[in-house]
Amino acid sequence: MAGALSVSTQPTKTHLSSTQALVDTPEIQHDLSTSNIQGACKEFAAILGPENVSTERTDLITHSGSDYQSYAWTEESAILSQVILYPETTKQVSELMKVCFRRRLPVTPYSGGTSIEGQYIPHLQGVCIDFGRMNNIVELNKYDLDCVVQPGIGWMDLNDELAAHGLFFPPDPGPGAMIGGMVLSLTVVLADGTIIKTRQRARKSSAGYDLTRTFVGSEGTLGLVTEATLKLAVKPPCEAVAVCTFPTLRDAALAVREVLSNGIPVAAVEILDEVQMKSINDSALTRLKWKEEPTLFFKFTGSDDLMVDHLAKQVGNITKQNRSTAYTSASDETERNELWSARKNALWSMLAMRKSPTDKVWTTDVAVPLSRLPDIIEFAKADIEKSGLLGSIVGHVGDGNFHTLLLFPEEKRHIAEGIVRRMIDKAIEMKGTATGEHGVGLVKKDYLEKELGKEAVDAMRSMKNAFDPLCILNCDKVIRMKAA
Amino acid sequence: MAGALSVSTQPTKTHLSSTQALVDTPEIQHDLSTSNIQGACKEFAAILGPENVSTERTDLITHSGSDYQSYAWTEESAILSQVILYPETTKQVSELMKVCFRRRLPVTPYSGGTSIEGQYIPHLQGVCIDFGRMNNIVELNKYDLDCVVQPGIGWMDLNDELAAHGLFFPPDPGPGAMIGGMVLSLTVVLADGTIIKTRQRARKSSAGYDLTRTFVGSEGTLGLVTEATLKLAVKPPCEAVAVCTFPTLRDAALAVREVLSNGIPVAAVEILDEVQMKSINDSALTRLKWKEEPTLFFKFTGSDDLMVDHLAKQVGNITKQNRSTAYTSASDETERNELWSARKNALWSMLAMRKSPTDKVWTTDVAVPLSRLPDIIEFAKADIEKSGLLGSIVGHVGDGNFHTLLLFPEEKRHIAEGIVRRMIDKAIEMKGTATGEHGVGLVKKDYLEKELGKEAVDAMRSMKNAFDPLCILNCDKVIRMKAA
Repeated sequence: MAGALSVSTQPTKTHLSSTQALVDTPEIQHDLSTSNIQGACKEFAAILGPENVSTERTDLITHSGSDYQSYAWTEESAILSQVILYPETTKQVSELMKVCFRRRLPVTPYSGGTSIEGQYIPHLQGVCIDFGRMNNIVELNKYDLDCVVQPGIGWMDLNDELAAHGLFFPPDPGPGAMIGGMVLSLTVVLADGTIIKTRQRARKSSAGYDLTRTFVGSEGTLGLVTEATLKLAVKPPCEAVAVCTFPTLRDAALAVREVLSNGIPVAAVEILDEVQMKSINDSALTRLKWKEEPTLFFKFTGSDDLMVDHLAKQVGNITKQNRSTAYTSASDETERNELWSARKNALWSMLAMRKSPTDKVWTTDVAVPLSRLPDIIEFAKADIEKSGLLGSIVGHVGDGNFHTLLLFPEEKRHIAEGIVRRMIDKAIEMKGTATGEHGVGLVKKDYLEKELGKEAVDAMRSMKNAFDPLCILNCDKVIRMKAA
Repeated sequence: MAGALSVSTQPTKTHLSSTQALVDTPEIQHDLSTSNIQGACKEFAAILGPENVSTERTDLITHSGSDYQSYAWTEESAILSQVILYPETTKQVSELMKVCFRRRLPVTPYSGGTSIEGQYIPHLQGVCIDFGRMNNIVELNKYDLDCVVQPGIGWMDLNDELAAHGLFFPPDPGPGAMIGGMVLSLTVVLADGTIIKTRQRARKSSAGYDLTRTFVGSEGTLGLVTEATLKLAVKPPCEAVAVCTFPTLRDAALAVREVLSNGIPVAAVEILDEVQMKSINDSALTRLKWKEEPTLFFKFTGSDDLMVDHLAKQVGNITKQNRSTAYTSASDETERNELWSARKNALWSMLAMRKSPTDKVWTTDVAVPLSRLPDIIEFAKADIEKSGLLGSIVGHVGDGNFHTLLLFPEEKRHIAEGIVRRMIDKAIEMKGTATGEHGVGLVKKDYLEKELGKEAVDAMRSMKNAFDPLCILNCDKVIRMKAA
């Protein structure tokens, strides 16, 4: 390779270090010229067949955003990709990426379209890769308690399939359960088209760096996941649900602390505030009528009814000593589904409360150390009340993580923004995080330095640059790669 | 920076890609000249005080290896570091690394000296940083269920301290428990001295890349951990232990499968083979006499005795239907410690079986998908019997992970090597891993490509190069950085 060419094609840091500061990051050079895109489309069609390459305007628009996210979006103002691609295999994704890498085309991955922090907004245009046709269970290893799936598979579809084998994929809102922790291995296509598998299927490994965890939660900025091997769990034979109300959220949180510090194993514990409970009543999405008070929902699992009933009873005693105003539990399937229905319908009941169909929804989430959860929830509630917006709170108490759902007409977006900003600042001040589950996307990237410090973000940028030296994968999301 | 200088000080890949092949890796240039080391020692003394900088030969030797590892080592043939450093703070470690980075001195971190795959062997000489004086609990957040510790703290010391608060740090051999998963956040000093904190203390976060997991298990090759925030658990109020024997290891493994597929929560389940049980009897390290048969050790935890006794009974019924030859359980503390003592003394009892004090011990571990555990254990046992060496097996059945302990005189090292090699090859063939817990170090690095493929290892090398561009941190361990 000639020296001159090598300089122009190879952006490098200007000095040697373990991290990469934004100011040392070379300028990103994408090529969005019409001739480059047209040339690429011919290559894409040769790889996928022309029927899997779309430049239809309606298609471009449905892949450009939605009302159900924090990133301001309208159909009229949307930034659009130039082309949407529908691959069916890892090999095809790899071939597509080779084209994009050679042509310096930015790529936005798209899967369920449910991310809410701007993860799939094509803000730099270019190519959108839609994984909707990669939605199969590739392999089910019943006695190894794992399965291999493609990225487009629906979570509920997967569990329907698994139920026939007495198994389930358990990321539920239980204390400590996290999707990331349930992923054993990933097949990933890197920016230059290289295909890697992060691990084999053993449930434990210390063989080299944890590439699996490197890609989990990287939101498509380090590579494109084309297959995932998931840890499964045996469906617990028995389950019980309990619902318990309290005069205040703080009382509820203290009761949970007491339950956990007694070493009682709880499969899930969720908190809904009185605004949320009222909206469930008002929307009439459940058959039962609920007390409009801060409410805890517990789930207990076990190998027989004796055990789950015993757990439910123990928790009933503890909550009673912690100022609960009512406690109902059930282990019968119909009854417990009825009890759990309020939790399940929380989001939908709030959506039903929109005053106008054009009203927006902003759901954000933060997490704090366990002991600070009551403080930050009280802080957020007071802020919401003062704002005049309708906002509810749903929390995963065992994790110190909670979601705020805010409803607002577009002209009041700045008010919602203010609530979210203050909530995040407060969470960070409490040694918490700007996001427990939703991720960073475009919306939260400027909080990262505040939360983790410049050096940690510079270290992340160093990883980003190592895997994606041309910055074509979901570029400038999660980690800022060009000055604002 | 002048062009010529920039070329000579900045090793870069010769072409743009997401991964870094070994052939594209620039030659490593360390400076081990006497003048460079002497100059560095002056700087180290200024940072730490001269009393914390050692060049004593006995000190150099104790930091160069031990008999209790797979890497062939003798005091006489040992490769030595030039200097051992004893920092007490993160800031000092950072200052030391700045010196090493500027002077291109290779660094080997040393903590407990318990790693067994050559992790702390100073095979390229240079500087050894001993974390023995960084052994404090920095912060205990009882109601957040976390604590911040320095890297030199002993695991048992920590749990002694935590017990006073009804807490413990739970990586035990239970199904799915892993040290990595219990780490919330790390403070890390990078190769150039940059200090980063990977996360704040919330128990869940999606804020950027999972830097915590990037450094966990990287064996000091990506950065030096100077503080760790650990997730703690409430000490379960009640516990029971059960010991159960079987005619064959396969029967035992099938019984465990049956227990797990009944959704019975088991805090730990360990398997010891008949060789191991015999060595426990012969070494007389426990008061009880044991049946010399494949044996399962179960641990059950819960909020009250009723629950743990119930679990022990359920498991007793299942194992009886699965050809167990005896089943004993206990929830009383003295009795259950007595039952668990065999598990606890497994390693020591094998060491006691050495025929000569110069005999070596090779403990290796592999992991396979759950269903293949009986197959690989049978394979390994047959191989050990054929070899004539004394070797036992201890397995974490819930993880598909097990350890083989081999005793041999130095002249039979090649026989032990052969057993380990065939066991690893078989594990990889079964979609398992060359190491479940022990790590890679110097000993297992050439298995990585076989297990993960060249591309995945090249991706790891890309990460290594991003964080440690001069390859001074535990250089050429885990990931090969120069041709063999």
